[in-house]
Amino acid sequence: MRTPTKDILKKMGESVTLMGWVHIRRDHGKLIFIDLRDRWGIVQIVFSPKNEALLKEADRLRSEYVITVEGVVRERPQGMQNPELATGMFEVEAQRLWILSEAEQPLPIAVAGAETEPPALDTRMDWRWLDLRKQEHTLIFQIWTTIENAFRRYCLQEDFIEIHSPKFMEVPSESGAELFEVNYFDRKAYLAQSPQFYKQMAMAAGFERVFEIGPVFRAEPSFTSRHATEFTGYDLEMSFIESEEDIMQALEEIMVSMLEAARDHYGKELEKIYQRILAVPSLPFPRISMEEAKKMLSSGGGAASERGGDLNPEEERRVSSFIKERYGHEFVFVTRYPAAVRPFYHMRQEGDSELTKSFDLLWDGIELATGAQREHRYDRLLMQAKEKGIHPESLQTYLNFFKYGCPPHGGFGFGPGRMMMKIMGLENIREVTYLYRGVKRLSP
Amino acid sequence: MRTPTKDILKKMGESVTLMGWVHIRRDHGKLIFIDLRDRWGIVQIVFSPKNEALLKEADRLRSEYVITVEGVVRERPQGMQNPELATGMFEVEAQRLWILSEAEQPLPIAVAGAETEPPALDTRMDWRWLDLRKQEHTLIFQIWTTIENAFRRYCLQEDFIEIHSPKFMEVPSESGAELFEVNYFDRKAYLAQSPQFYKQMAMAAGFERVFEIGPVFRAEPSFTSRHATEFTGYDLEMSFIESEEDIMQALEEIMVSMLEAARDHYGKELEKIYQRILAVPSLPFPRISMEEAKKMLSSGGGAASERGGDLNPEEERRVSSFIKERYGHEFVFVTRYPAAVRPFYHMRQEGDSELTKSFDLLWDGIELATGAQREHRYDRLLMQAKEKGIHPESLQTYLNFFKYGCPPHGGFGFGPGRMMMKIMGLENIREVTYLYRGVKRLSP
Repeated sequence: MRTPTKDILKKMGESVTLMGWVHIRRDHGKLIFIDLRDRWGIVQIVFSPKNEALLKEADRLRSEYVITVEGVVRERPQGMQNPELATGMFEVEAQRLWILSEAEQPLPIAVAGAETEPPALDTRMDWRWLDLRKQEHTLIFQIWTTIENAFRRYCLQEDFIEIHSPKFMEVPSESGAELFEVNYFDRKAYLAQSPQFYKQMAMAAGFERVFEIGPVFRAEPSFTSRHATEFTGYDLEMSFIESEEDIMQALEEIMVSMLEAARDHYGKELEKIYQRILAVPSLPFPRISMEEAKKMLSSGGGAASERGGDLNPEEERRVSSFIKERYGHEFVFVTRYPAAVRPFYHMRQEGDSELTKSFDLLWDGIELATGAQREHRYDRLLMQAKEKGIHPESLQTYLNFFKYGCPPHGGFGFGPGRMMMKIMGLENIREVTYLYRGVKRLSP
Repeated sequence: MRTPTKDILKKMGESVTLMGWVHIRRDHGKLIFIDLRDRWGIVQIVFSPKNEALLKEADRLRSEYVITVEGVVRERPQGMQNPELATGMFEVEAQRLWILSEAEQPLPIAVAGAETEPPALDTRMDWRWLDLRKQEHTLIFQIWTTIENAFRRYCLQEDFIEIHSPKFMEVPSESGAELFEVNYFDRKAYLAQSPQFYKQMAMAAGFERVFEIGPVFRAEPSFTSRHATEFTGYDLEMSFIESEEDIMQALEEIMVSMLEAARDHYGKELEKIYQRILAVPSLPFPRISMEEAKKMLSSGGGAASERGGDLNPEEERRVSSFIKERYGHEFVFVTRYPAAVRPFYHMRQEGDSELTKSFDLLWDGIELATGAQREHRYDRLLMQAKEKGIHPESLQTYLNFFKYGCPPHGGFGFGPGRMMMKIMGLENIREVTYLYRGVKRLSP
């Protein structure tokens, strides 16, 4: 029976079986010390000359060998104790050793120890499975698991149905640009850029509340630190809303519960390893209309783009710092986006058809989520599609969803990858993606 | 503030706002009765001639219109009560009415009422969003949500990390057959047939325990009731196992907790609507080796295929009935599959290299899951790949995962769609798929 390193403190004086990787090997005279690493931590193993055959076997050990060690847990001798480490007051005196897997030497990139020059990000991506062995990198995916679970927990408590919509589409969704084409038997199919149309179909199907977690595909020839050709999306859609305000309320509550979960489970590690102190924002988040945002931007000295335009990334950062200054809040909903920069299916504001009932959520200058009330009235939807120059025939399957009774509804989509960047304080989406996919990267 | 139909029993004598679909309209003399449907049930609305303008407005209502009704909850008059329905003792006397969305008449397929001839499955798929409005079809996805959550809850309790592995691959995984090809900028990419290689990479990355829920893609030109070109897969992988037995134990516990969750939340509805009584199986599930299974099959009279072969679907059914008869159990693990019918990465049995440390899980004659201990030793893996006629160069990225220390590990993959078929007692995977994708179907 294996003892994970996290349980070693309970086993003082007992015999244990540890399994893991050779993190670091140190030779001191006739003794061999191994730092054994598993997902939960590091324990020091001592091979002493009392057992010569065993010491000889231990002499074969190199970095990243995978081993099983049987031994007895004991207190470390005075002067050898390391109070920095949870397991630093103990060590295991080895009695038996099995090598489960050897590691070719030298390793292409180091896993343990401080490096004078850390490898380039691209090299790290080439050897991603070694890169991910570092505790600080594994942590990213433990935190991701935690926030994802918090997102789902909220949805399930609120009686949402989880859907898995198809990634193959017959006709392009939305704009038609940035679509991957698949050879589908004797014809073409397209990979969904978002579950937008299909989560709206769930509203027409009377599901009322749905969410989806799944991959989305974007054939953007983009090389920025925030873009990937494939990434995980969180999507939510709900019916019988009064306005987009209902969606913003759901989203801000979800954000808070995700950040609370991250802080409660991994706040200490984030502080220790990443020097990040995760503040859980207060509710409600500030809201600012696009019009107010533009005013603020021009009064701030810089030139703001004209009415009808979007915010560029620099403007998003400025809006966030303005809100931070005025309200002490890192989050802000920018509302009432111009129809010109929104998809045809966003509902228009009553009394101002140039504006939509939509919003973006920014966290500290980064756009995290986009949402809106959708247009559920067939005739208006058709008109709005035509206005955008979309041929209604190409949309007919989607438009049919609204022909036989469809409730008012709205929702949001967001990329947890960008949220993870913010949580970890990392600058590149590649770092928080399990296996990044980009224009030039399809492997490992 | 909307009152969902499920809450109406608490609102006796009070004014409520209901929102939903016109399920059925009945005219009795000067009265109009509407059965209003939302996701949670049906409530009868009465429009009386006391309010003529309102009655006139109600006269516009047709099947599947989406409406908001304000009214007062009261007991139904004697003789009008329906004890079959949770809300059958009450009705709402309408005071105000808003039409939120009209439905073109006639509907392409009916939502309410008994049909003399139900539409063909293919017609139902064409109008899937109307088909899904039926309570018995929505129920499928409520149950799916419940079992999926049970699967995840098990994984999270056991400290698994949730991953989202890429669906784009540079080189074909596994066999190379049945792969969808994507036009990926100036080259080709392939869609992952399973997260197999990438969940194994997580073992090489020291994650130790991972699971994934996501789409898998199979370019099978297959038209059976059990196949689709895209479906949801549940995958799990764990390190430092002793043998495939550890994987079977995890899987059978997961199965039990999924079925318990389905029964606890939806047992009554399953019985009432589908005449299904969901039995939660006892632990452990019976195990039978392929060799024993073959013996049993030939002793049973029918001709069993030779050693080294797989079980065909008919044989799977016979094995299940044999186990049911002998042990009274609907589940069975068939173990020790011949290497000839398993992928190269399944570990071989010690002492019999023609057999693998692998298993299939059958439920009542249907294969639900496949699992195995994997070969983690580089040299053997290379040899096994070569034996299968695979060029090692095409596998080099995958093989590299095993070069720098990889623990013994194993896992399983399974299709919740097939499990849902069994739970519901439905014969076709199309019925339990939100939006089915097949050779001839890419829409809606």
